[in-house]
Amino acid sequence: MSIVLYDLAGADPDLRFSPYCWRTRFALAHKGLPVETVPWRFTDGAVIAFSGQGKVPVIQDAGKVVSDSWAIADYLEEQAPTPTLFGGPTGRAHASFVNAWADSILVGAIARFIVRDLLDIIDSKDVDYFRSSREARFGATLEAVQAGREDRVAAFRDLLLPVRLHLRKHQWLGGAAPSYADHIVAGTLMWPYCASRFELLEANDPVAQWQGRMLDLYGGLGRAAKRA
Amino acid sequence: MSIVLYDLAGADPDLRFSPYCWRTRFALAHKGLPVETVPWRFTDGAVIAFSGQGKVPVIQDAGKVVSDSWAIADYLEEQAPTPTLFGGPTGRAHASFVNAWADSILVGAIARFIVRDLLDIIDSKDVDYFRSSREARFGATLEAVQAGREDRVAAFRDLLLPVRLHLRKHQWLGGAAPSYADHIVAGTLMWPYCASRFELLEANDPVAQWQGRMLDLYGGLGRAAKRA
Repeated sequence: MSIVLYDLAGADPDLRFSPYCWRTRFALAHKGLPVETVPWRFTDGAVIAFSGQGKVPVIQDAGKVVSDSWAIADYLEEQAPTPTLFGGPTGRAHASFVNAWADSILVGAIARFIVRDLLDIIDSKDVDYFRSSREARFGATLEAVQAGREDRVAAFRDLLLPVRLHLRKHQWLGGAAPSYADHIVAGTLMWPYCASRFELLEANDPVAQWQGRMLDLYGGLGRAAKRA
Repeated sequence: MSIVLYDLAGADPDLRFSPYCWRTRFALAHKGLPVETVPWRFTDGAVIAFSGQGKVPVIQDAGKVVSDSWAIADYLEEQAPTPTLFGGPTGRAHASFVNAWADSILVGAIARFIVRDLLDIIDSKDVDYFRSSREARFGATLEAVQAGREDRVAAFRDLLLPVRLHLRKHQWLGGAAPSYADHIVAGTLMWPYCASRFELLEANDPVAQWQGRMLDLYGGLGRAAKRA
């Protein structure tokens, strides 16, 4: 029986753009586990009430329920140890640093480039919730948050220096093979890739080239993703 | 026979403040390997010419010469596999991301808080070289680079968010035990800790509390360090 993944979707149910759900999609594909995704919208809290919280990703695996992308990665590593996501407890702890970096630095920075664009792709029933919750978080209108992005994109690219520097010596964040660290960062970048037409990366950036390799993995899972 | 480490020193030969040499000091202590340090100054290039390059750390181990803190960590892990620094190839690759983050984000940011203070502790023979090379790098006088640091320190602390977030779930960057990821970040923080009296961290910051645990490790190696 396939694992079921509740996956954030836009008005178009095929448009999937959550940076956290993409981490889980990549991790499931890494393990070679079949998945059946259920399109889910921000205001569908009741649909995942069985998980005891209100955010996706949520997976159901033969009666087991796990939410939160990090907890899901842990669960998958325990259920299906190979191919490994973490390479053992030290690798897992170091991946937790990568996760913390992506969550605290990357997600907030990317939001400031695409948050207004998201309004154009999300389901109409989500629009009021999305605008009011995000405007409260930023203390500004979505239009104001996203304004001037062309002038800010160079500074954004500088935030990716650690990835760029790492890729001088390694093909993947996981070294010779992709690991959950790759899924964390590539999953995060699937968010702007799918939800917006704004080009965050220059084509000749080693980070963009690595992203291209990630899109091709797992039978072209990322490459096949629907884009806005 | 002890490993010999060429270690950046100030005018006071007991004042050691290189963020890269400290990574090596912690890694050697982690392995329980005895070390004999040789105080080295920026203008002592000829003294380490045998290493084929001009920067410390450089180690000599029974005729073997290794330079560069990352290459030294690799060498130590190969020579003395336990206790592990990396926890295997995936953990090593993830640690390389931490190293890239420290080098590309942390080192440059810290420099802007202490680079003028360094002039007060380095050997008099290093002063002209240090001022001219660093002022060329920054395109400004050392005084101008360091100016206004009280107003910039909150933004610096935000750069440490990934560490802070990670430490919510783990005692060490390496998880349940310190790893080379701890040595990278703690070694980098030994630089301002030893070279300047400017307080980069607030005492109640979880990062400062973790730093305190790092200072206590290995018989209080960091705690015993001479400070400016």
